[in-house]
Amino acid sequence: MNNNVKVYLSEQRDRQLEELTEFLKIPSVSSLSEHTKDVESCANWISNSLSEAGMQNVKVMPTKRHPVVYGEWLGAEGKPTVLIYGHYDVQPVDPLHLWETPPFEPMIRDEKIYARGASDDKGQVFMHIKAIEAIMKTTDSLPVNVKFLIEGEEEIGSPNLPDFIEEHKEMLAADVLLISDTALYAKGEPAICYALRGLAGVQIDVKGPKRDLHSGAFGGGVPNPAKQLVDLIASFHDDNFQIRVEGFYDKVRALTEEEREAYRALQFDEEKVKKDLELSELVGEEGYTFLERVSGRPTLEINGIYGGFQGEGIKTVIPAEAHAKITCRLVPNQDPDEIIQLIEKHIQKNKPAGVEVTVTPFDKGHPFITPFDHPAIQAAAKSYEEEYGVPTKFIREGGSIPIVAVFDQILKTPVVLMGFGLESENIHSPNEHFHLENFDKGLAVICDYLFRLSDSL
Amino acid sequence: MNNNVKVYLSEQRDRQLEELTEFLKIPSVSSLSEHTKDVESCANWISNSLSEAGMQNVKVMPTKRHPVVYGEWLGAEGKPTVLIYGHYDVQPVDPLHLWETPPFEPMIRDEKIYARGASDDKGQVFMHIKAIEAIMKTTDSLPVNVKFLIEGEEEIGSPNLPDFIEEHKEMLAADVLLISDTALYAKGEPAICYALRGLAGVQIDVKGPKRDLHSGAFGGGVPNPAKQLVDLIASFHDDNFQIRVEGFYDKVRALTEEEREAYRALQFDEEKVKKDLELSELVGEEGYTFLERVSGRPTLEINGIYGGFQGEGIKTVIPAEAHAKITCRLVPNQDPDEIIQLIEKHIQKNKPAGVEVTVTPFDKGHPFITPFDHPAIQAAAKSYEEEYGVPTKFIREGGSIPIVAVFDQILKTPVVLMGFGLESENIHSPNEHFHLENFDKGLAVICDYLFRLSDSL
Repeated sequence: MNNNVKVYLSEQRDRQLEELTEFLKIPSVSSLSEHTKDVESCANWISNSLSEAGMQNVKVMPTKRHPVVYGEWLGAEGKPTVLIYGHYDVQPVDPLHLWETPPFEPMIRDEKIYARGASDDKGQVFMHIKAIEAIMKTTDSLPVNVKFLIEGEEEIGSPNLPDFIEEHKEMLAADVLLISDTALYAKGEPAICYALRGLAGVQIDVKGPKRDLHSGAFGGGVPNPAKQLVDLIASFHDDNFQIRVEGFYDKVRALTEEEREAYRALQFDEEKVKKDLELSELVGEEGYTFLERVSGRPTLEINGIYGGFQGEGIKTVIPAEAHAKITCRLVPNQDPDEIIQLIEKHIQKNKPAGVEVTVTPFDKGHPFITPFDHPAIQAAAKSYEEEYGVPTKFIREGGSIPIVAVFDQILKTPVVLMGFGLESENIHSPNEHFHLENFDKGLAVICDYLFRLSDSL
Repeated sequence: MNNNVKVYLSEQRDRQLEELTEFLKIPSVSSLSEHTKDVESCANWISNSLSEAGMQNVKVMPTKRHPVVYGEWLGAEGKPTVLIYGHYDVQPVDPLHLWETPPFEPMIRDEKIYARGASDDKGQVFMHIKAIEAIMKTTDSLPVNVKFLIEGEEEIGSPNLPDFIEEHKEMLAADVLLISDTALYAKGEPAICYALRGLAGVQIDVKGPKRDLHSGAFGGGVPNPAKQLVDLIASFHDDNFQIRVEGFYDKVRALTEEEREAYRALQFDEEKVKKDLELSELVGEEGYTFLERVSGRPTLEINGIYGGFQGEGIKTVIPAEAHAKITCRLVPNQDPDEIIQLIEKHIQKNKPAGVEVTVTPFDKGHPFITPFDHPAIQAAAKSYEEEYGVPTKFIREGGSIPIVAVFDQILKTPVVLMGFGLESENIHSPNEHFHLENFDKGLAVICDYLFRLSDSL
């Protein structure tokens, strides 16, 4: 990276923090309609900031609710294009009385900046704009083509973004999607999350006799929906926690030896999990570690089951109905729609006698992976290492970030999740904050990355 | 039977119905403390009535709550002793506005007497007293020795009767226990219930992680109590509805060919059950009919199961706990305590990994049978046939009458359930009534039975 950029960043630090403070002061709470105007001002603030940084074709683009801000600089002929995604909306602030300083009056204490959105995600979005600004101001151009897509609805589930992406596929076309909305592995330990699990699930409703029955008068002679449901659900797994739904594993991308090595490198403490959760034992699919099971392997879990009497003591009924909610976490390259179909087929095949079974799918999400040997990820790892001085960890997350899967599905662009937050920074809670150490290092990492990408893809 | 008895019954009918009206006027609601005095007057009324009928050693015997009335006549030397059990307490009357005439102002309409307790059980208790009276007044003695035990707590579960029976074993010793507190098979079709199922059950509580967990972050790596419970419960049955708890069937008294013939003679309409319950299919243990399954075979039923999220839609949690309530209906000669032990052993043997399982037994009840070839039952069947002119049916009930099992366990006396009610008589509901046809026929049946018993045992 150009040394002038580093000097610029250092010289401009105070001004930048003042600007960040301004940005954080805007109460852009996307879920509350009384803040609709604030969300809009915030979009305009971003738009101005992008223009000042040297982005072109900057626009605030309306959606059905809160606008998307777009900007681009496409002057790096023959070079790769990076699409930077983030969000400028924030979570509500209640309970307000638990904040040590007001959520929209940013305050720096102990080298941390306290405010709603400081870490999630305004702070991190701001860093990208300021990184671009620093390179533009010092080199008059950028080493890669850059597009910004900053939305205002992430905290309400990005309801309008999938359609927006679909409608603006060409405008958003890029070689890398860069997102800073996640956390480091730990303080001083950078990590890139290269895979997320997807989601597919169903509600199973089992209907038996038309009313609850006396278990004396009818027990043994009529289908008991609770028993029939239990048998059906028990059929989903074998005794070794393997899922018995036919075809369930067919499209599962096996963990590579490199990926398993990356897991091992984390030196994860399973004993600590057991202790924290007060469990005598961790269980799961044979041949995999805890971390592999919860992020690299698919699951089928019961989230809820209910039927019949739940009160104190005994009530000798045969319930008329029983219900279960099950969800699967999916790994690449499983397809949620296909998995739902396989589950429906399994239920059909194992349909219990004498009862009606209804299966209702829940919302779905695709799994995502950008294999970590991808040059865009390897370059990111190197940029992290340059600043943090330790090897970058490669991790997978067991949960889902639905919008990442949407980008992946529509744009087919490799995704780099380059986060600078910390798990301890109280996002979504009172006293959200962001460590300035990671603000400074992160700015340098981003600048370094843009230069590095120029020659990597 | 002596013809004088018939003449007496016919001549005294109006007076008897007046007396029954008096008896039914007493609001002896055992569950409501404001009726404590009424329950006591009712005991005294019974006591007087027994004395007037010629019973000796009549006494109102206190218990912790409502008194028991006892009386005896032991002058039939060398003849069998009959213990007649019934109850003089009644159910509450609410909702009062649904009664066509007030519950404690007995009224005869269409040859039925309407009042709370008319069928359950004052009407039937009254018949026994009047049968005794008729024989005593006409023959100056009784063909058998007779003891009465009329309690005042049946409708609240007879909490004090087991101890009372235990403490007065000798006083209550008899060759037959005669109870009229059940129903005919249908109008004009007498039936003797010769067996009841017992009850044994447990609550199963499964505890996993110390709090609900995110199924993304932890799914696949920790024990899911709902899944572990489902597996455990699924292990209770094989695919053919046979119970897999080791030893469960060891003490089951097989249905005899005569008993199965008695079942067949009922010409039970299984299609009607399916239609009433809106079931596509009746299921159960292979090789048995519906009636056999629900009354002659033991069961293990889930009465309730619950764990995790039960709201609308999806919540991707791994629940911290899951629970089930299961009860078994037992048949002779299964022992409830032994069955609980076998279930506990089964759970221990099939204990799911990584979770804590707690098993809490519920209240238990013994099954009961007096094989219907017993002379006391055969005599009862003949007495019924004498009056009703059709063969008596022999039935088993799938439910439990706990106090019958208690008598059976403590006194070891054959039990004859000689009921005169009808299923349609609204017991426990508004507009309870009793058909006078069965009052008249029943009085004759009881008299005939006492004479018949004299030579049968």
